[in-house]
Amino acid sequence: MPQPDKVTALADADESTLPEDLRPYFQKCRDKLGFVPNVLRAWLLRPEKLRAFIKLYDELMLAPSGLSKLEREMIAVAVSSWNRCYYCLVAHGAAVRKLSGDPQLGEMMAFNYRVAELDGRQRAMLDFAIKLTAAPYDVGEADREGLRGHGFSDADIFDLAEVAAFFNYTNRVAHGVEMMPNAEYHTLAR
Amino acid sequence: MPQPDKVTALADADESTLPEDLRPYFQKCRDKLGFVPNVLRAWLLRPEKLRAFIKLYDELMLAPSGLSKLEREMIAVAVSSWNRCYYCLVAHGAAVRKLSGDPQLGEMMAFNYRVAELDGRQRAMLDFAIKLTAAPYDVGEADREGLRGHGFSDADIFDLAEVAAFFNYTNRVAHGVEMMPNAEYHTLAR
Amino acid sequence: MPQPDKVTALADADESTLPEDLRPYFQKCRDKLGFVPNVLRAWLLRPEKLRAFIKLYDELMLAPSGLSKLEREMIAVAVSSWNRCYYCLVAHGAAVRKLSGDPQLGEMMAFNYRVAELDGRQRAMLDFAIKLTAAPYDVGEADREGLRGHGFSDADIFDLAEVAAFFNYTNRVAHGVEMMPNAEYHTLAR
Amino acid sequence: MPQPDKVTALADADESTLPEDLRPYFQKCRDKLGFVPNVLRAWLLRPEKLRAFIKLYDELMLAPSGLSKLEREMIAVAVSSWNRCYYCLVAHGAAVRKLSGDPQLGEMMAFNYRVAELDGRQRAMLDFAIKLTAAPYDVGEADREGLRGHGFSDADIFDLAEVAAFFNYTNRVAHGVEMMPNAEYHTLAR
Amino acid sequence: MPQPDKVTALADADESTLPEDLRPYFQKCRDKLGFVPNVLRAWLLRPEKLRAFIKLYDELMLAPSGLSKLEREMIAVAVSSWNRCYYCLVAHGAAVRKLSGDPQLGEMMAFNYRVAELDGRQRAMLDFAIKLTAAPYDVGEADREGLRGHGFSDADIFDLAEVAAFFNYTNRVAHGVEMMPNAEYHTLAR
Amino acid sequence: MPQPDKVTALADADESTLPEDLRPYFQKCRDKLGFVPNVLRAWLLRPEKLRAFIKLYDELMLAPSGLSKLEREMIAVAVSSWNRCYYCLVAHGAAVRKLSGDPQLGEMMAFNYRVAELDGRQRAMLDFAIKLTAAPYDVGEADREGLRGHGFSDADIFDLAEVAAFFNYTNRVAHGVEMMPNAEYHTLAR
Repeated sequence: MPQPDKVTALADADESTLPEDLRPYFQKCRDKLGFVPNVLRAWLLRPEKLRAFIKLYDELMLAPSGLSKLEREMIAVAVSSWNRCYYCLVAHGAAVRKLSGDPQLGEMMAFNYRVAELDGRQRAMLDFAIKLTAAPYDVGEADREGLRGHGFSDADIFDLAEVAAFFNYTNRVAHGVEMMPNAEYHTLAR
Repeated sequence: MPQPDKVTALADADESTLPEDLRPYFQKCRDKLGFVPNVLRAWLLRPEKLRAFIKLYDELMLAPSGLSKLEREMIAVAVSSWNRCYYCLVAHGAAVRKLSGDPQLGEMMAFNYRVAELDGRQRAMLDFAIKLTAAPYDVGEADREGLRGHGFSDADIFDLAEVAAFFNYTNRVAHGVEMMPNAEYHTLAR
Repeated sequence: MPQPDKVTALADADESTLPEDLRPYFQKCRDKLGFVPNVLRAWLLRPEKLRAFIKLYDELMLAPSGLSKLEREMIAVAVSSWNRCYYCLVAHGAAVRKLSGDPQLGEMMAFNYRVAELDGRQRAMLDFAIKLTAAPYDVGEADREGLRGHGFSDADIFDLAEVAAFFNYTNRVAHGVEMMPNAEYHTLAR
Repeated sequence: MPQPDKVTALADADESTLPEDLRPYFQKCRDKLGFVPNVLRAWLLRPEKLRAFIKLYDELMLAPSGLSKLEREMIAVAVSSWNRCYYCLVAHGAAVRKLSGDPQLGEMMAFNYRVAELDGRQRAMLDFAIKLTAAPYDVGEADREGLRGHGFSDADIFDLAEVAAFFNYTNRVAHGVEMMPNAEYHTLAR
Repeated sequence: MPQPDKVTALADADESTLPEDLRPYFQKCRDKLGFVPNVLRAWLLRPEKLRAFIKLYDELMLAPSGLSKLEREMIAVAVSSWNRCYYCLVAHGAAVRKLSGDPQLGEMMAFNYRVAELDGRQRAMLDFAIKLTAAPYDVGEADREGLRGHGFSDADIFDLAEVAAFFNYTNRVAHGVEMMPNAEYHTLAR
Repeated sequence: MPQPDKVTALADADESTLPEDLRPYFQKCRDKLGFVPNVLRAWLLRPEKLRAFIKLYDELMLAPSGLSKLEREMIAVAVSSWNRCYYCLVAHGAAVRKLSGDPQLGEMMAFNYRVAELDGRQRAMLDFAIKLTAAPYDVGEADREGLRGHGFSDADIFDLAEVAAFFNYTNRVAHGVEMMPNAEYHTLAR
């Protein structure tokens, strides 16, 4: 059985390394979620990098974009499913359930997004994300044209590519250090 | 023949969108390299994200780490070779040539790192980076133990995993938007 | 959003085709689970085959074996995860949660069994099941010897191979006809 | 050289375990073929399962279906070729030769079905079977629509999917226990 | 059904293009085999290249080597099986049957060489050939050391690598032009 | 760092084994290039085969063909990139640079030919070469028809298939014996 307090397979750092300016961020997590996501605790091993990671994460997943927050989370989960990343499937699967209010949608993104009955725009969005994940060198102008045909602007295509790409990064950090998710995610928004 | 001024397959943004606080950064590039790397110009389409990208990039590739700057560039190129990312192979291949003073080492990283006669530590580092790239869910404790046996600390393993993971992100942004490198890289440090 | 009453992408058959001798079996499902699993309703299109399918299923998953019922369900879910089979992940993921009383174990089998802290015997069992699924022609005597070293008898190896193989069959029927699971599974034993 | 009497790499069971009710079935094999196929002898290790296996096998391969017996054998061999299953290629390759009276057709199914000059319906049938075998999660409504365009009814599609799926099961049992075919198959219907 | 006289999917050339000096070679084929192998007829489209192809083929497959002629044919068939090349499987499968006097050995090489009970040296030889075929960039010094441990000299390793490599060439020419084998091969040495 | 004088990982042969009739060929290399390409020195281990190799190489790469010499070198490099063959990427990448006078074209072929802005004919040519390399059994009449639509004659298709196939051979010999390129190639035509 998994050890409930384990964050990664590396020597876990405690919060004593947390830079002063990031303390409010951790406090906000505790206030809002009831816990600090383990991904943040994992990065405490390299606290200077934590700041940059948070900044990029918030910019990509929370800032205004032509892609809704739910759509960005759907991309996150579909990519993490391709890469079989336990941490991200648990944490972002919960986010899809919560943002959509549809627990089955979360399961579909995590198990096989192709079974979800999405509109053409969202299906094209996820197909692009998975192609970019699985065979990035096969992505070409025809794929971008397909997205434009579904109404994606060039800025939207940039955001879509970057969000899909970003989870190819976090998935691999999670695999590389064996990051385990907080237990709280499992029951969230079921 | 490629168009020399093309940055991506998306609508290129000009520098009018560049936030004020990032202007010195672009100027520093011009002073030091003689040009602004196209990766930065590509991100001008989403200038708020550019700031976050620069911050993470600098933290990962330039800040102090148990991995030397050359080693981090070697990882960058080996990962980009796996993903067949033209932009990163050209730009970071030049960086390996420059930092090592060994043009053939740059070619080896870009074509097939396995032919380079590296010491066991560096070979293990690159094998880990490629395994994390190609089959991330197969990475496990035995791989981390192998790295520890070559003297990598847990913080070093974190840095190695994150650098390898990061280029799985930039490679996919580059493929997704078809980013083209500055012509200047091709002749650099040959 | 998925249509709650859809069983497959083929013309669904109603229970009028259900052979007389199988009616008690459907009734037992209703009594015990509260519903008839959609896999059985899917097979109503070819009711003679349903009888054979049920017989084999029950023999493999419920009859005495050196592998516990939970272990057989763990194999079912790990194999279905490799094949990304939505139906089987939902239905058998619920079974792992129920039989183990450990919801996280169900998630681990469905997302990436490698993160579960299993004993060596169960890990070897799942590694064999996945190798047989992903690269069957690479399975050889060394793999069987490994299982014997963990205490598996030859009859156990037969059962392990057959259960793993069987879900490579059901996964493909489910994909081939686009079988959708009953909604009830999602909240079961969370 | 292979040992002529070897059935599997597991402890072979003799016929003393054969349940009474299955004895006529074995006798019929001896009368009709001159031998008991090794697949049946392999299952003697778990005789209760043998009964269920025979029932499903006969239902799938011999009962009435919109797919001819030869077509079902062609699917069997093409799938077994993808999975490189020696047992099934030898035994079912012989069946294709026998049912078609065309030894080269058996070789084509076993080596590469794409070289056979089949009509569009049979080619679509085999393409579907191989896609379901190699990348089951990529099968979708467009594939089923393609089959319907060649005249396959929904019941035919079910049968096609199930036969292809079934050999993904038997192939993996054969690989898992290293099942060897009877020598008699090699010269049959050449 | 395949057209018996078809050699390739390209415009077949007749023997009028055959250079004078190669006429005795074709005659020798007719005297010895009873027919001209279609591979030679296929190359008539580019008769100057035919001469070079024959020369290399004879040097590799017929000239003295530390690998026996049968071993070279076993490599040919195992490689062709990996690449699913109908022409080479039919023609060289017949050669294995003929040279070994063991029809089942031919089938094993064509279907899955791993099931053949070979001595360690021959198994290592075929494993090397398949690794070089399937993942050439993963071949390294450890593989060559393994061969040396089985008694292969460096010249033998060269011959092994070249024969395996050569069939990666002929397999691809055959696939590229859809070369069909002479019907005579099918019944040869059964 | 690589040893400058190393030709392969096998016992290197010196030129004492070079057959008399091939001495002028080596001399011509020295006169024209300033060095003997290591591929020729590698084959000195089996000098009789060297003669056949040279003959085929010259016929394929230098003799008249509907494909220009540059196009044949572009195919060579794109195929070698797929197979990650260091020797061929270095040596033939230099040839592309030299024949085209466009150093970036050499890099594009070596890193990812898809980014080059080629006309439809050359792009189709390279797509065919890579498909034949990566999934030879998927090549079919539709692919050949596509080439014909771009003006390739059947003889051109033969040449294209054979050149692509040939580098699948040389790449694997190079990987199998770990052939290292002459240092002179690196700076050629930059």
